[in-house]
Amino acid sequence: MGIDKAAGITPISSAEAHNKVLQIGLFGFGVVGEGLYKILLQTPSLHANISKVCIKNSYKKRNAPEQLFTTERDELLNDPSINVIVEVIDDSEAAFEIISTALKNGKAVVSASKKMIAEHLPEILQLQQDTGLPFLCEAAACASIPVIRNLEEYYDNDLLHSIKAIVNGSTNFILTKMFEEKLDFQQALLLAQQLGFAESNPALDVEGYDAVNKWAILLTHAYGIVEHPNNIVFNGIQNIQGTDAVVAREKHYEIKLVGQAKKLIGGKVAAFVLPQFIRQDDHLAFVKNEYNGVVIESGFADKQFFYGKGAGSFPTGSAVLSDISALRYGYRYEYKKLYYHKPNELTNEFFVKVYLSFDDLKYIPKEKFEWIEEWHSDADRKYLIGVIAFEELRKGNWWRENNTSLIMTPEPIIEDIELRKLKKKSLELAGVI
Amino acid sequence: MGIDKAAGITPISSAEAHNKVLQIGLFGFGVVGEGLYKILLQTPSLHANISKVCIKNSYKKRNAPEQLFTTERDELLNDPSINVIVEVIDDSEAAFEIISTALKNGKAVVSASKKMIAEHLPEILQLQQDTGLPFLCEAAACASIPVIRNLEEYYDNDLLHSIKAIVNGSTNFILTKMFEEKLDFQQALLLAQQLGFAESNPALDVEGYDAVNKWAILLTHAYGIVEHPNNIVFNGIQNIQGTDAVVAREKHYEIKLVGQAKKLIGGKVAAFVLPQFIRQDDHLAFVKNEYNGVVIESGFADKQFFYGKGAGSFPTGSAVLSDISALRYGYRYEYKKLYYHKPNELTNEFFVKVYLSFDDLKYIPKEKFEWIEEWHSDADRKYLIGVIAFEELRKGNWWRENNTSLIMTPEPIIEDIELRKLKKKSLELAGVI
Repeated sequence: MGIDKAAGITPISSAEAHNKVLQIGLFGFGVVGEGLYKILLQTPSLHANISKVCIKNSYKKRNAPEQLFTTERDELLNDPSINVIVEVIDDSEAAFEIISTALKNGKAVVSASKKMIAEHLPEILQLQQDTGLPFLCEAAACASIPVIRNLEEYYDNDLLHSIKAIVNGSTNFILTKMFEEKLDFQQALLLAQQLGFAESNPALDVEGYDAVNKWAILLTHAYGIVEHPNNIVFNGIQNIQGTDAVVAREKHYEIKLVGQAKKLIGGKVAAFVLPQFIRQDDHLAFVKNEYNGVVIESGFADKQFFYGKGAGSFPTGSAVLSDISALRYGYRYEYKKLYYHKPNELTNEFFVKVYLSFDDLKYIPKEKFEWIEEWHSDADRKYLIGVIAFEELRKGNWWRENNTSLIMTPEPIIEDIELRKLKKKSLELAGVI
Repeated sequence: MGIDKAAGITPISSAEAHNKVLQIGLFGFGVVGEGLYKILLQTPSLHANISKVCIKNSYKKRNAPEQLFTTERDELLNDPSINVIVEVIDDSEAAFEIISTALKNGKAVVSASKKMIAEHLPEILQLQQDTGLPFLCEAAACASIPVIRNLEEYYDNDLLHSIKAIVNGSTNFILTKMFEEKLDFQQALLLAQQLGFAESNPALDVEGYDAVNKWAILLTHAYGIVEHPNNIVFNGIQNIQGTDAVVAREKHYEIKLVGQAKKLIGGKVAAFVLPQFIRQDDHLAFVKNEYNGVVIESGFADKQFFYGKGAGSFPTGSAVLSDISALRYGYRYEYKKLYYHKPNELTNEFFVKVYLSFDDLKYIPKEKFEWIEEWHSDADRKYLIGVIAFEELRKGNWWRENNTSLIMTPEPIIEDIELRKLKKKSLELAGVI
């Protein structure tokens, strides 16, 4: 056959692809690790075997044969018959050590540790470049939704207008219960914990740390932006009050914790993870309870919406499984937008229209606002809706202190060049000019 | 590095992956072909060039350099520098000739011709086996929604419970207009044609041919079922009456043209493409106008929902682009459920609960029903809701003749072993026993 092998279209037989056996060394046998183990038992056609599982505490009772387990990580990392390391442990510094050593030892890596990945993006990118080995992490963001793969493969640099997503199931569950069953925050949190949707220490979810870690990872695959999560403006839902939900309902909105990124006119990217008012006809309004959802707007595919479970043993396990499956044909992320283009940059030079509720006006630096469109005050809670430079949120903390609650409005981002026009229109409407 | 190359984890440098240039021979320069051409111009990082475009009529004015075009297909198929054939033409027999020759000549193939693929599934599978070359067709079903890739990679044989989808945007547009703006069928069709969502000869869409072709393709990737579309029970929306929409609204349902497949208790698969009542809280109720949507239920990932544009120049072009992009790393479908398992089989041995509206009872063989739960009659239109063996629909045509309209109820499939229990319950409720 006249095939041009230099072009990389190499014929292979099905049998050949099928005979590649993946020998897996698994780190972690918690909720996700055990889920993956059970899934692999039920998917023999994948030809992927768990050779060994490294755990921290050997005394715990496990639902798997005893000889599978070890507490010595080098038994996995130095075993030449193991060609894939799957890492699903909680300790992010230990996880980084493991995946670094694994790549350096010539093993492909699948990881679900969003915190570790988000905090070590530059090193992990470098390790992939140095070793030429795949590092896949579909499970680290939105679990059962194949969002990373989709961002890698469906969008080139110039095509992705915006991405907007609910990436944390615990907070979405709590907000849904606050809305639909009118529970207050503490009751909703307790229910989430009882149902297993929130950790016993819920701060990671509730205060937005989990969401911003996922957002840092998605920004790399979406736009080639490599930023530490500390440099992304974020907040959780801990400040949202029952009265905010009342206002949202009056305005026919819901409140969601939303990660957002949008390419601005100059080509730089605005990004943040903050509570947001969502219109009822917005795709994200459809995402209730512990589910996740992602809306991608692009030049060619138009609007895509993905919805699925973003956490839990089997949804996360199935995402890990899809990565393992992709290793069978040598899949790796290309990071096209990072390496083959002038990478995109984050910017703080834009404005946002926000809702702010507070106990006392003295906590609010109202002079920082470009203009204020709405004031409301009752006995014990007040709110305003106004436009402010995003930089003011980045450099200040006043908007999340003193019981103040900041919620983005439905289309919050205002670009520099729109500001003057919008301000004039708003003041005209208010009868000021 | 101690990598086990036999296991297929081969290190490659980014530069190596990046330097694979894909030289494309494109067949067809209609809506999709020209869309793809424009997209590729804007995505230089893909390193994919269109070398030549084969067209049927050389006299048409094209928005591309003249030297790009030829009417001689062998100029593409016999050019050793071309390593990828992209085929997006309308004539399905010519398309099959092209993709067969291309594969035999050692070229990878990307195709968007759903009719051709659906009607030639066995030959296309054989050609992939014989040549070991990739044949990718993400654009052939739901365009911008990566449903084929997802079915291939996220689900092993035992994991996929069911798949339910709106795969034809034209009919969904028409039904949306019939519902939301209370247009009658002919008005809605005319509007769809004016807006470019329906062909001037709309029978392919309206009578369900397009949808069943896509369903045949998805059944192969979902369940390893290889069936000619003629063997799948289907209908379009041509028989739906304004009065059916009135009944649906009374019952708080919408009407959609839905492809459905469900694994039954015995392991065989029930599948069909028919109009269906959809509850307002069903994910598919969210899919309006020309959009497509897919709901996948599985043992591990739980429920996934994908939504996006299913047709049109750029959405289809972007799906073709994602296939081209995947060729860069040698991706090919594995057809795991077909080759590595006992393939699933279609069955007609189950029952369905259907709504049937008609002009005169004489057209309805009511003795064929297991039981009838609801009768309704007014001056010029009557309906019933009842349970019938699916085999009666497969072998008869009475349900789509004489102006009769059949619509599936929301959870239509009833398995053999449930039948007796449900019948008893239904008759009790009706006060018959």
